[in-house]
Amino acid sequence: MSGTSDDTPRATLAEVARTAGVSVSTVSKVLNGRPGVSAETRTEIEELLDRRHYNRRNSPRPIAPLIDILCYEVDSAWAVEAISGVERIARQQAMGVVVSGTNDRHAADPAWLEGVLNRNPLGVISLISTLPTEQIKQLRARNIPLVTMDAGDSPDSSGRGDVPSIGSADFSGGYAATKHLLDLGHRTIGMITGPSDLMVSTARVAGFRAAVETAGLSVDPDLIRPGEFHHADGLAQGHLLLTRENRPTAIFAGSDVQALGVYEAARALRIGIPDQLSVVGYDDLPLAPWTAPPLTTIRVPLAEMSKEATRLLRALRDDPNLTVPRIEVATSLVVRESTASIDLDP
Amino acid sequence: MSGTSDDTPRATLAEVARTAGVSVSTVSKVLNGRPGVSAETRTEIEELLDRRHYNRRNSPRPIAPLIDILCYEVDSAWAVEAISGVERIARQQAMGVVVSGTNDRHAADPAWLEGVLNRNPLGVISLISTLPTEQIKQLRARNIPLVTMDAGDSPDSSGRGDVPSIGSADFSGGYAATKHLLDLGHRTIGMITGPSDLMVSTARVAGFRAAVETAGLSVDPDLIRPGEFHHADGLAQGHLLLTRENRPTAIFAGSDVQALGVYEAARALRIGIPDQLSVVGYDDLPLAPWTAPPLTTIRVPLAEMSKEATRLLRALRDDPNLTVPRIEVATSLVVRESTASIDLDP
Repeated sequence: MSGTSDDTPRATLAEVARTAGVSVSTVSKVLNGRPGVSAETRTEIEELLDRRHYNRRNSPRPIAPLIDILCYEVDSAWAVEAISGVERIARQQAMGVVVSGTNDRHAADPAWLEGVLNRNPLGVISLISTLPTEQIKQLRARNIPLVTMDAGDSPDSSGRGDVPSIGSADFSGGYAATKHLLDLGHRTIGMITGPSDLMVSTARVAGFRAAVETAGLSVDPDLIRPGEFHHADGLAQGHLLLTRENRPTAIFAGSDVQALGVYEAARALRIGIPDQLSVVGYDDLPLAPWTAPPLTTIRVPLAEMSKEATRLLRALRDDPNLTVPRIEVATSLVVRESTASIDLDP
Repeated sequence: MSGTSDDTPRATLAEVARTAGVSVSTVSKVLNGRPGVSAETRTEIEELLDRRHYNRRNSPRPIAPLIDILCYEVDSAWAVEAISGVERIARQQAMGVVVSGTNDRHAADPAWLEGVLNRNPLGVISLISTLPTEQIKQLRARNIPLVTMDAGDSPDSSGRGDVPSIGSADFSGGYAATKHLLDLGHRTIGMITGPSDLMVSTARVAGFRAAVETAGLSVDPDLIRPGEFHHADGLAQGHLLLTRENRPTAIFAGSDVQALGVYEAARALRIGIPDQLSVVGYDDLPLAPWTAPPLTTIRVPLAEMSKEATRLLRALRDDPNLTVPRIEVATSLVVRESTASIDLDP
């Protein structure tokens, strides 16, 4: 029985093909990152090549002057800012940016992966929370660096810990937004979160809780409402919060777009902002100052994050073994006109 | 003297290089669309090759499964919708989308063009108004199809007429928006236009004028204000319109984003929408129903236009001599809550 120790003789292409039960041409496709091989077969052959110490040629394929961005929703206001940030940097470096969407927050289309392997870009920036380990391995086998940008990792996959990520200080952001409302005198504060399987949501909720508790108050779990980062969630959860008994005088929304949903819920109930309700958003998208009233929000420095992600791809190409800690850039509170103080003793 | 008639002997690569005073390797780069040749030299050699009937090999380079999109502003809400429309179609066809911005509404970066020639995509969809003739010729020499999508052509370059374009019915859109306001009883209607060098603006203004005149009224040129399609222009021009004597009771903005600028101008002057002012936008972006009040606007079917543009690229690859008339898709009025009737005899 042949072991996997270092003195196993190196396999030829034909031997690998025979062992895998495929043609030599299929093995060659996998080796050269060409399309036309199913993901399963590709993985199987990659593993076999690793196990049999196949001597990959030392002349790697040329790197295309492209950066791939993978998004969950290409047209979300958040993705747009990230894409245009990366595009600006890439253009300065005479590189193109390939933008792809996926319908699944936790995986890319197999056809997308095949395209990436085939075009061999400088690297991949993923705006979706995770890629399946299988897809990560296939990129790695081709030395194509992968960096995730918030959307953020699932809290429970942080143990995986081997995909470099660029994030922003979500805990601090949640804390700053909430402290701002507390400082204005609000005591009943609602929060609408992002999806609970995203680290960014979890960290912001933790910041909210920490601020409330630091102020010597207790957190009413009914005031924390879950939602996607969508307008419809801000509208629905905003309506629920604003029609409950002892309704909140302030709402901290998970995104600027959600905050606009809260605006609509308040408008339908004839609750004035900021006189009767303060609202804080999250992201500071270009539309935040255009809302009526202009939105107080937490600024996420997406341009800076995009720059950092691009820089990191290049560093990883130069040294694939580079160990990158998670990089977090600072968030900041931007006060506009959607928040106001309330009288503590009416 | 050697003529350009059909019996001119076909040149060899070396002869072309000698005539142009460059190396054979430079000519070869031009022939194969590889980078490293200045735009001027490339053009000169292309022309020489054409004149000398250089026999291009009949085995063309493979077409990369990519579509290039060129935008003026990658993060404009309009561009985002177009990009995500093309991306959805491209993904169904297992193609990637390369997104590039330019700082010039009338030209692409030379580095961009070089990248496109190098990667040989299915084709280019341009969201900027025009490309210089030189850049168009270089794409054509490589058989890379180019389709423009509104942004629209400059009115005065329509004579060029040889780049296929996909547009929407801007004249009808301008007419429908204005007629809606006239039907509600408005008689003093302001209009904020797009840039005057874009056909889309010109056509919408023409629609506005036609509707006003059809109603038996005359057009007050002071009520037609120029602007970019930006929030800042809606705010500035909206303010001017709303502070003039005999202020308009309705404003037709050139874009949804401009309309939000008008909202802000009205809010600052404490003019209520729709009670004291009706506002109509243009585009029907996702944010239109989220505004306060939800915006009445003209819907531009960007998804349909993106689909059409992608289809056209493929058709042009199959038959580069295909003659394509300009394609216009229909626009439609979407009535929400920013428009209301006024009392004609107060």
